[in-house]
Order: sequence, then structure tokens, then C-alpha cells
Amino acid sequence: MDFAERYGPWAVVAGASEGVGAAVARQLGERGVDVVLVSRRQETLDEVAATVPSRTRTIALDLSTADAASALAEATADLDVGLLVYNAGADPNAALFLDRPVEVWQGLLARNCATVVGLTHHFGGLLAARGSGGMVLVSSGAAWGGGSHLAVYSATKAFDLRLAESLWAELGPRGVHVLGMVLGETDTPAYRRILAGREREGLADPEDVARDMLANLGEGPTFPPDGTPFGALPRRQVVELMSQGASMLHS
Amino acid sequence: MDFAERYGPWAVVAGASEGVGAAVARQLGERGVDVVLVSRRQETLDEVAATVPSRTRTIALDLSTADAASALAEATADLDVGLLVYNAGADPNAALFLDRPVEVWQGLLARNCATVVGLTHHFGGLLAARGSGGMVLVSSGAAWGGGSHLAVYSATKAFDLRLAESLWAELGPRGVHVLGMVLGETDTPAYRRILAGREREGLADPEDVARDMLANLGEGPTFPPDGTPFGALPRRQVVELMSQGASMLHS
Repeated sequence: MDFAERYGPWAVVAGASEGVGAAVARQLGERGVDVVLVSRRQETLDEVAATVPSRTRTIALDLSTADAASALAEATADLDVGLLVYNAGADPNAALFLDRPVEVWQGLLARNCATVVGLTHHFGGLLAARGSGGMVLVSSGAAWGGGSHLAVYSATKAFDLRLAESLWAELGPRGVHVLGMVLGETDTPAYRRILAGREREGLADPEDVARDMLANLGEGPTFPPDGTPFGALPRRQVVELMSQGASMLHS
Repeated sequence: MDFAERYGPWAVVAGASEGVGAAVARQLGERGVDVVLVSRRQETLDEVAATVPSRTRTIALDLSTADAASALAEATADLDVGLLVYNAGADPNAALFLDRPVEVWQGLLARNCATVVGLTHHFGGLLAARGSGGMVLVSSGAAWGGGSHLAVYSATKAFDLRLAESLWAELGPRGVHVLGMVLGETDTPAYRRILAGREREGLADPEDVARDMLANLGEGPTFPPDGTPFGALPRRQVVELMSQGASMLHS
């Protein structure tokens, strides 16, 4: 089976307006897969769609609403979807937990966990039935440890990483490739907004991240395949290291 | 400050009907702390309350509903709460992700994550304002890795562990002790129901777990303090080990 046969004819990219999502959409188009682009703003979706060299469908949808998963399932019901890439989930707050109203965090939880559960259940069922395809959940190095300014973000990214791992184990034998994609610091518009003008070296290029993702769809449960960079360090040390890392973004 | 001064006069134990929650409630009573017991069934709550040697208040509440956190906040608004122990969250399903309707998993997510975010935000704010007290989030060894039959459970427990770690970092400097309590296999009614009659050796005693928890409230971010038992093993190996462990519960 070639790539488009296994993961096409359609892929759904949730969080496709910029950064890694937009790069994945373009690269999927280059590989002959048609792409459903999902994000909040229609205008941005149209701009990205114009760069994708295959058929596209744009769906303007807020992924933090309670009915987002069922709305997206309905809006793609007529398509044979072979790949789900869930790339939404940056934390635009990067704030202390008590410094934001709880509704902000419940929205992040809905977008990064509840909608992910809904979509992986829907598309996972369809893919298992056809016996091929894949699902990618984009996680983050923040999944490896909590820390100051990371509370709900780190928690949701750990959720997504564990969910991807379990689904890799459960759906692999049914022909479905599941991958938890652990992003390091990446040069995306979302991350640049958090950096707010601060210099940061060694950021990954979204095009490279997208390429790594698509080249490793069948090499789950995670990319990179390595375990936690913290090894078996006592948790207090891990949390202190994570807090130090995050504090550089708030100085 | 003695124990009851720091963590009293009232503690809230969510998931107090049996097992570790019921043991914690009794031991808090022995240490002179009054206890709010929260669980679904009033009758069970009354039975546990009768074993607690301090004042109690029982609140019958389904922690998987969308308004559970605000309902509990309201029902304790007249009390000076110094400790929150969130112990709800066993997975009564222990099933493959696609073998249950998605509503089952959304309910587990609500109980183990959304309600936890709501309660830690509410009580965390109150505790930070008074400058003392604590919060315990009960997690599980399943937080360390996904695996077959563990999908949403492992994900929610990783969420809780990371949230506890971050809140330890953010609230510790404000006098609030936060602890992520990582349970191993424990001889609770909930776990016995999952075992369904299978023999299992080396289960921990809920009374010992409760004692460890209360003795280590100020020793966060986690108890045990050690890092992941998997060290830096590649994730595929971790997931295979977790899947093997879980498969013994489904043979």
C-alpha cells in the first residue's frame, strides 16, 4: 500500500491554520491525499487551503466547544477519511493556574482532551472497520513533567500522549497506525506569541516536524521513540527543571 | 502548626465511599480534622461517616456531572476547608476504547479531569488566600504509561499527576501543600471488582496508603517521590509492559 492508499483518500487536520498543522496539510497534499482543514477562522482556512496541492474542504469550528467532535464527524460523514491529525492545543495563556478564570482552563481541557476523545472514538471506529489508516495526536515535551505556568497545558498534553500510546496498542493489531507526536520547542506562530519577542535558539522548523510525523506514522507509539528525557529522576527535580524552563518565558 | 491547624478545621474527601477515601476520612478524624464526605450514594456516605471520629458532613454528588465542582463549592461555602483530597477516579470499565460508547469515556474524563480542575481552582484559591492547607490528587501507576485496556484511565491519571506537580510548584510558595499520590495496586473494593475474583498478590492496604498520604502532605510534588519506574525506556517498551500488566486483568 502506498501512502495515499493507506492514509487517504482524505485526511482530517484539526488545528490547520498555521504552524505544524498547516505544514502537515500541505505535505499531505503533496503526497496525493485530500485534506479537510479545521480551525476557528474561515479566512485563515481559505489562505492555507490555497497552498494545499490537492482537493480540500474547510470547516470553521471552535474545537473547545462541547459538540465539536460530533459537528466534525457530521461535516465529514460523506468522506472516506484515512488519517486524523489532531494538532490543536497550544496554550495561549501560559499563565499561573489561579491567575485565569477557571473557564479558560476548562476550555483548554475541552479542546485538548474531550474533543480528542470524541474524535479518536469516531474516526478510530471507522478506521478499525476499514482496517487501515492512522491517527496522530500532537503532544509536547510539557507532557513529561508539570511545572509553574504549565498546569493545565502539561496535564492535557500528558493526557494526549497516554491516549495515543494506549490506542497504538489497541488499534495497531487492527491495521490502524496511531502516533503520539511529542513536539519540542517549534518555530510556530503560536509559540512566537508566547515568546512575545524574546530570543530563543534551537527552535524546530514546522516543515521538518511535519515531515518527521508523516515519515513515522507507522512507527508508534511515539515520535521521537525515546522515553522521557528525565529518565528516573525524582519528580521534585523534574518539576523544578520544568519550572525553570517555563520561567524563561515569563521573565 | 500542628496537623489539624494546618489542614483543618475541615477537609473535603471526594470519593469517600470506600477504599482509600474512606480510610483517609477516618484517619483525618483521628487527627482532629472534621470531614466533608463526598460520593454518589447517601447510604454509603452515612455508613462511612459513622466510622469517622470527628464532625462530618455528607454530600451525595455525582462527580462526573458538568456542575459537580460548583455544586461542591456551594455546599461547603460555610466551612473553613484546609484540605482537599480528590480520590475519585477508578475506571469501572477497564475495557477497550472502542468497546464502550464514547459517553462512558467522556464521563470518566469529566470526573477525573474537569471536576478536578474546577475543585483545585476553587479550593486552591481559598487556600492560597489563607496561606496554609493542602490538596491531594490521587493518581495511579497507570499514569506512567498507556497500554491496552487503559486508554482514558491512564490518560486521566497522567493528567492528574501533572496537574498536581504544577500546582505544587505554583502554590507551595504560597503555603499550600500539593501532593500527587501515585497509587500502586491497592486492595480496594473498586480494584476487587476489576479483578473479578482473580488472585493478585502484593496488593497494598488502603489504611497504609492513607497513612502514607497524610504523613507526606508536605513532601510533594509526588508520593512516592521517585520518578517513573520505566526510567528512560523507549515508549514502545513501556506501552508493551503496561499492556501485558493490564492483560492479566482481562484473561
